[in-house]
Amino acid sequence: MVTVLKAGTTEEQKRMLIKWFEDQGLRVHEYENDNQTVLGLIGDTSGIDVEMLELLDIVEHVALISEPFKKANRKFHPEDSVIDVGGRKIGGGSFAVIAGPCSVETEEQIIEVAKAVKASGATMLRGGAFKPRTSPYDFQGLKAEGLKLLLEAKRETGLPIVTEIMNQDHLDLFEDVDVIQVGARNMQNFELLKELGRTDKPILLKRGLANTIKELLMSAEYIMSGGNENVILCERGIRTFETYTRNTLDLSVIPVLHNLTHLPVVVDPSHATGHSDLVEPMAMAATAGGADGLMIEVHNNPPMALCDGAQSLTPLQFEETMKKVRRIREVVA
Amino acid sequence: MVTVLKAGTTEEQKRMLIKWFEDQGLRVHEYENDNQTVLGLIGDTSGIDVEMLELLDIVEHVALISEPFKKANRKFHPEDSVIDVGGRKIGGGSFAVIAGPCSVETEEQIIEVAKAVKASGATMLRGGAFKPRTSPYDFQGLKAEGLKLLLEAKRETGLPIVTEIMNQDHLDLFEDVDVIQVGARNMQNFELLKELGRTDKPILLKRGLANTIKELLMSAEYIMSGGNENVILCERGIRTFETYTRNTLDLSVIPVLHNLTHLPVVVDPSHATGHSDLVEPMAMAATAGGADGLMIEVHNNPPMALCDGAQSLTPLQFEETMKKVRRIREVVA
Amino acid sequence: MVTVLKAGTTEEQKRMLIKWFEDQGLRVHEYENDNQTVLGLIGDTSGIDVEMLELLDIVEHVALISEPFKKANRKFHPEDSVIDVGGRKIGGGSFAVIAGPCSVETEEQIIEVAKAVKASGATMLRGGAFKPRTSPYDFQGLKAEGLKLLLEAKRETGLPIVTEIMNQDHLDLFEDVDVIQVGARNMQNFELLKELGRTDKPILLKRGLANTIKELLMSAEYIMSGGNENVILCERGIRTFETYTRNTLDLSVIPVLHNLTHLPVVVDPSHATGHSDLVEPMAMAATAGGADGLMIEVHNNPPMALCDGAQSLTPLQFEETMKKVRRIREVVA
Amino acid sequence: MVTVLKAGTTEEQKRMLIKWFEDQGLRVHEYENDNQTVLGLIGDTSGIDVEMLELLDIVEHVALISEPFKKANRKFHPEDSVIDVGGRKIGGGSFAVIAGPCSVETEEQIIEVAKAVKASGATMLRGGAFKPRTSPYDFQGLKAEGLKLLLEAKRETGLPIVTEIMNQDHLDLFEDVDVIQVGARNMQNFELLKELGRTDKPILLKRGLANTIKELLMSAEYIMSGGNENVILCERGIRTFETYTRNTLDLSVIPVLHNLTHLPVVVDPSHATGHSDLVEPMAMAATAGGADGLMIEVHNNPPMALCDGAQSLTPLQFEETMKKVRRIREVVA
Repeated sequence: MVTVLKAGTTEEQKRMLIKWFEDQGLRVHEYENDNQTVLGLIGDTSGIDVEMLELLDIVEHVALISEPFKKANRKFHPEDSVIDVGGRKIGGGSFAVIAGPCSVETEEQIIEVAKAVKASGATMLRGGAFKPRTSPYDFQGLKAEGLKLLLEAKRETGLPIVTEIMNQDHLDLFEDVDVIQVGARNMQNFELLKELGRTDKPILLKRGLANTIKELLMSAEYIMSGGNENVILCERGIRTFETYTRNTLDLSVIPVLHNLTHLPVVVDPSHATGHSDLVEPMAMAATAGGADGLMIEVHNNPPMALCDGAQSLTPLQFEETMKKVRRIREVVA
Repeated sequence: MVTVLKAGTTEEQKRMLIKWFEDQGLRVHEYENDNQTVLGLIGDTSGIDVEMLELLDIVEHVALISEPFKKANRKFHPEDSVIDVGGRKIGGGSFAVIAGPCSVETEEQIIEVAKAVKASGATMLRGGAFKPRTSPYDFQGLKAEGLKLLLEAKRETGLPIVTEIMNQDHLDLFEDVDVIQVGARNMQNFELLKELGRTDKPILLKRGLANTIKELLMSAEYIMSGGNENVILCERGIRTFETYTRNTLDLSVIPVLHNLTHLPVVVDPSHATGHSDLVEPMAMAATAGGADGLMIEVHNNPPMALCDGAQSLTPLQFEETMKKVRRIREVVA
Repeated sequence: MVTVLKAGTTEEQKRMLIKWFEDQGLRVHEYENDNQTVLGLIGDTSGIDVEMLELLDIVEHVALISEPFKKANRKFHPEDSVIDVGGRKIGGGSFAVIAGPCSVETEEQIIEVAKAVKASGATMLRGGAFKPRTSPYDFQGLKAEGLKLLLEAKRETGLPIVTEIMNQDHLDLFEDVDVIQVGARNMQNFELLKELGRTDKPILLKRGLANTIKELLMSAEYIMSGGNENVILCERGIRTFETYTRNTLDLSVIPVLHNLTHLPVVVDPSHATGHSDLVEPMAMAATAGGADGLMIEVHNNPPMALCDGAQSLTPLQFEETMKKVRRIREVVA
Repeated sequence: MVTVLKAGTTEEQKRMLIKWFEDQGLRVHEYENDNQTVLGLIGDTSGIDVEMLELLDIVEHVALISEPFKKANRKFHPEDSVIDVGGRKIGGGSFAVIAGPCSVETEEQIIEVAKAVKASGATMLRGGAFKPRTSPYDFQGLKAEGLKLLLEAKRETGLPIVTEIMNQDHLDLFEDVDVIQVGARNMQNFELLKELGRTDKPILLKRGLANTIKELLMSAEYIMSGGNENVILCERGIRTFETYTRNTLDLSVIPVLHNLTHLPVVVDPSHATGHSDLVEPMAMAATAGGADGLMIEVHNNPPMALCDGAQSLTPLQFEETMKKVRRIREVVA
């Protein structure tokens, strides 16, 4: 860490800051430039609260040399993490395909979709039981009843299930769930993250709409520092000025995250684009870009089902997409 | 609501959709344009899930004519809401000044700051006990102990207190708190919002970093639809490409929100800008722009206190700022 | 186009607006909803200045049903445009690879790079002669001398050349250039676009840092409406809050643009990401996502050449990337 | 400037880079941290191309200590610049009000508006003759004829005129214009900026939709480094995810720019918000925030004039706004 002091800093202020750094166990390397003092900090700076340091009156600039995340950091864990989900692996060369409807609606629906996506090559079943909705007047999901239907579909097909939690008080209900999903809006719900850090379940952590790559890794760190290292990261689009797509899918995070962390990276082209005709090309792009898995919405699509948007693929479309994804995997794997 | 159908929509698909609208109690006004069918929906469309409707294969575009929020809507509640906080009012011409340190640190600190800001004209005391931090390794606040110190400062000064909640399970601890703050990262923590809707405490709801004005109002609606109409909205900067300021303070939300809703609007220039020298001009700008109140960080500023950033004003700076703010209020009030 | 009038609109105001629409040759279909008048406009609305219409006092909302771009619109030109660049084609199944250094530096450099990229499969040579730089104190390119060196490299290798124009007054210098590039910062330099519309040269139009897909198409329309329909669109990243990559590469524009327009779409992963180790995965992702071509920076990389960033691939890295890109092409083509 | 080298950098690579820095006349202060070499550069680093340096393979991070703009920098020019516009001053305590219609339409219109805004206290007249429009099919302004009408209005009222240039080839036409405006879309049209740097006319430089404060200052530097130091900066809103307002007005740039530069700062609330009812509160906010002037659209508003949006104030509304702005000025001046 390099700390540049402002031009007017007094000798006494500087000495107090240096002493404070030394009290934190750091050595301080000092030199002058343009009448400004530059302090190079040597040692483990992970305990330093950078945000606070930057706000000090006498500090002009803090330049980080090492990252603030540790358990998620590839530097300290060079090999890919491979997460085991009921025998299906993800990461380190194992590719996961998580497919299913946005919301669980009925037993017939979820079982029919589960069988269809399994037949096309999905390795896990997704389905929403608790649904975060912008409006309090919109459908909020089947809740506990939806979880039961998902477990029923798991029994029928053997597919591990992935579903979203919105409240740490519901954790008991998720006992038989295989992967607990943290949605984009809860990526910085630190209380929820801490609670999930105390479990040993794989957590699929979605990037928030306006969260940086570093913040995503710091949120993973919340879970991992609690003892649960089974974290799967998920890119699902960020919020930008472009309104043609629901969000802007940021695929360069795949290689960036692979550089920074050993955790597997999954891409959700359905939520990112919001249009079914964009799902296949973006699923192929994500696969070619090195993703460790895909998360795709599939619905058995009765003609007017209002809970099924053009964002979902039909089972037939999903089958076609999977064929192409597999051919791309042959090139990149 | 106007729904435009895609060019290839079949007669049968159209009839199914019209029937579905009619089943929701709407009348449908239909006409053709450029080979596309346009459906004008007449009646109460607030029960329609627009997001879902837009995603239907046959739907090209949905144009909303009326807003999806009801309880927060000025149309149905033309007068300003005035929130009573322990006898201090906010909204409808009453201006609130909420001041205090970012974090509660010690009894001496919080009482000294409380007395100072009260003397300068603050009407409420703020202070963080539970602190949301990006890194799990950073200081997380004094928690329950911090709440006790805040209540002590309330006893000493009579100032109502405003402090942030991060977890609905802590609600019991907030029994004597006057205003419960929902931070930007929790603006769409719908489970927390629902729980707060069941209380009768004033809620200060901060706009999320990447949330639109409409989403802010929908989150207020979550609280209000639960029965608690004491909601104060707070602008604290949004995330943009500009990195010079911590966030981009969006002051035009003040008149926009005043047009759309009857709820009071408070501005927090400290978090928005992240620099103490920007706080006074932005506090003045917010006041001139019509804000119903300000939320300002003040710290008694021991020279090296690392929990006090340049974002905080000293009590002396706060006093100067308050003098100017009062003069601006004379112009706008 | 659907125009919704505000609640308080008088009968006379409404009649004036309807008359004005009719004077533009449109038929107006009127109905009431929620005390608001909705006007459905029937006929060719492309002459209506929507931005202005939306700003009228009595207008609440304008919903477009048809797009404001005509010559670029796939609806009126269903087949892919195929642009011929000195015998090399792009679009309609023909894939272009445009490679070369950021800046032309010396004759040896540009010829060596040109030969290398040709050997690896590039179909066109890129190189900057006029360089747009944020700082007036930074290197601005070799200018006319750089163009001469590019033409020399073309003579040696037969590769058509692609280079950026910054000023319509330089057009004479570009007579032997094969493709004229309009950089992101000039995407809405309408005077330049109009001038290029009077030439018959292929134009590579880069998306501006903060420009929407629609604005990109409207800028293409500026060129095409002048008579030059040889426009190649280029995605090169947009500006968002994420700072880890130079820009955020928005690959979903590939299928979106293919839906909206018949023009070919090229992706530049070098400028978008700013890091050479992200270029290969994003080149593969763009190819898998359906791009009609790639634009990649390649430099022969003397160890300390300061005009060669980590953003450029070495000729060897480029060769490896091309092998993988070709294998991806086999899957998508 | 501090340059941090990547962990794997060889001794030879490091020595080459240090030698290169020394060849640029810099002294290099070197030390180690965490197995990474940190180079502190001492001397005038303004000639170093930071962007290029950052992209070098061996460079992990470059931290700037001094800003890259010189002529615009307050450090080297501590007093406020005061720009003289035909006897009317702006900056250094002098407040300018630039008002007039978006587009010049007729002689009657521009003269009527000019007289009205002068009577209410405007110090300069604005009006568009050359109009940048997203669509080639929209009205592009009266061009040379519009300039003539503006000069006519100047003769009638004595108000200096401010109008936008889009093409350096039009400079001759602007000989009698008092302030030449560079629009947001041309903020990085460097060829135009260089040409304006060769004139001695005051230039009103608008911030681009997605341009940072630093980029705005670098564009001012383009003009100033050419010899023309009469630059007025203008904030007119940036592009964000929020769509309720046309752009997001970023008022914190006022104090930020006042810290960084001696140039005057004007705010345009009309273009920023796009709604006339937001203009007055934002004009007041900008004034309270310390702006050196305002730029406001005023139209004499025949009921259906399609070139006059709800964004324009009527002369009467402008008069009311000016009264309040003057009262705010009394507080801040």
